Amino acid sequence: MRTIDWAGDHVVAVDQTLLPGEVRMLALCDVDAVIDAIGRLAVRGAPAIGVAGGLGVALAARTGRDPEWVRSEAARLRAARPTAVNLAWAVDRVLAHVDEGAEAVLDAAVALLEADISANRALGARGAALVRELVAGPVAVHTHCNTGALACVEWGTALGVVRSLHQEGLVRLVFADETRPLLQGARLTAFELGEMGVPYRLVVDGAGPSVIARGLVDIVLVGADRVAANGDVANKIGTYPLALAAARAGIPFIVAAPESTLDRATPDGAHITIEERDPGEVLAFGGVRSAPVGALAYNPAFDITPADLVTAVVTDTRVIRPARGERVA
Amino acid sequence: MRTIDWAGDHVVAVDQTLLPGEVRMLALCDVDAVIDAIGRLAVRGAPAIGVAGGLGVALAARTGRDPEWVRSEAARLRAARPTAVNLAWAVDRVLAHVDEGAEAVLDAAVALLEADISANRALGARGAALVRELVAGPVAVHTHCNTGALACVEWGTALGVVRSLHQEGLVRLVFADETRPLLQGARLTAFELGEMGVPYRLVVDGAGPSVIARGLVDIVLVGADRVAANGDVANKIGTYPLALAAARAGIPFIVAAPESTLDRATPDGAHITIEERDPGEVLAFGGVRSAPVGALAYNPAFDITPADLVTAVVTDTRVIRPARGERVA
Repeated sequence: MRTIDWAGDHVVAVDQTLLPGEVRMLALCDVDAVIDAIGRLAVRGAPAIGVAGGLGVALAARTGRDPEWVRSEAARLRAARPTAVNLAWAVDRVLAHVDEGAEAVLDAAVALLEADISANRALGARGAALVRELVAGPVAVHTHCNTGALACVEWGTALGVVRSLHQEGLVRLVFADETRPLLQGARLTAFELGEMGVPYRLVVDGAGPSVIARGLVDIVLVGADRVAANGDVANKIGTYPLALAAARAGIPFIVAAPESTLDRATPDGAHITIEERDPGEVLAFGGVRSAPVGALAYNPAFDITPADLVTAVVTDTRVIRPARGERVA
Repeated sequence: MRTIDWAGDHVVAVDQTLLPGEVRMLALCDVDAVIDAIGRLAVRGAPAIGVAGGLGVALAARTGRDPEWVRSEAARLRAARPTAVNLAWAVDRVLAHVDEGAEAVLDAAVALLEADISANRALGARGAALVRELVAGPVAVHTHCNTGALACVEWGTALGVVRSLHQEGLVRLVFADETRPLLQGARLTAFELGEMGVPYRLVVDGAGPSVIARGLVDIVLVGADRVAANGDVANKIGTYPLALAAARAGIPFIVAAPESTLDRATPDGAHITIEERDPGEVLAFGGVRSAPVGALAYNPAFDITPADLVTAVVTDTRVIRPARGERVA
């Protein structure tokens, strides 16, 4: 099952807000529906929202309205979430065909979806080779958020590397951060690891760094929402502490992301817009209020891991070593 | 209102599992009730569980049974939670009077309760002076878990320092980690800061290090459950990442704890027992299940911050600078 797909005249996508309790498919029939699904994280994960954005442009083109209108719809799609570069990248790639007609636009969007699948497979293989090079024997991995098939069309990025390693029998244990506020680790990564049959333990986000310090982890593997030209990495809030801990423990901190996540146009992390989401996400979970009435919260959705803490960025085509000063561009 | 107190023939304590929704007092009439309250964190915070342990010995002595039986009850109290040294310390202090009769035991326990109040006041003043020395003008503080009046009898340790600073108009903003899995920050620290009238923002635990990296925080102030002789600090899981981030950002990382939290008998953090609690605490959030059925979790309740990352430990009587090599002993 693909996380997101084209269904002849509309987009279908797993509603990730309902997982792991329920697997329900959403039918997204217009740009508003796509933007809403991205905004409320029913569709999430940098590669998956890129694909959703591309298919959203195809939905706009299918209406038969003029290219100017499609361009304005594309601008709305591009702004649905600010941090992941894949969204703007995919929207622009598909929009480039707007003057060739709706069929050409759709072909470009579907090609992008297929390319995501093959990029993920290539990334998984390349990442697994890198891990084998860095760590001998079966590994204990620490990961954050969800970077599996659910974050993409299929396979996954960082969790795709775990999937590839697991096929070779090389995963001893995965520590997965629950990833507050929206618990993508507890809800989605635990679900995927269970399906794969990989031994894992969920931990609270505060536990990761000391689990690393205590020698329980061989390697940290995370995804990215945007990698700047200098190798600074924007990823889900709570990634940076793992990088700090990995550096102190002397273990590799690896970012697995397709080439479409690399952003040559952004010089460094200071130039990446960090999305601030609804403080209500911090004050409650699943409708259960944790904080007192009137409590205030601050809810940045991403953090920046500086390049000097990033042992390697592995993509579908190469390995870059930011900690050694290698640049993306 | 005191968090815990002696009520003539039994112990009364705020049931902290019900906060902030409900302020209900528990009546603890025997050792079993005290152990249960400590075990399920109805009474929590290293100083408060120390006082509860001491009063528990007084409850045992009041039964009129022989000193050997009281000693065995004291051993059970001492084992109610393993990480905080205050518990064993307080139990032993009160138990030393067991051969003098129940009145002497009770006097010792109540003296310990009164001493906690005065130690906290002294700690607050000394901590505030240290913060004024380290940071000019009103400060932005980052804190973790709950170290306020609710963790003690009154006033608080790290949050007591905030209380003392606030009385001088020197607190600009407090970032408070929600502190998964049991959300002491969201439930208790937000409640206390609101009552104090201190401006604050709750953040998820993963956000603290990047909030620090972005220059939003002047100083990190946390409590401790045990400080080893070399200055290594055991505190609530999620403390260590703040210390890593503070060191990288070049801001002070301050531990505020009464002298009773210092453990000269433990050479370093490697010798501190880290309590592992029920994995179920990680798999759910306020009674709402977050992880899939069958998911496994690992739930260490504390982490160790190595001495070289600890700018200062401030107690009721002195300031120790572990990062400069100063020892507790």
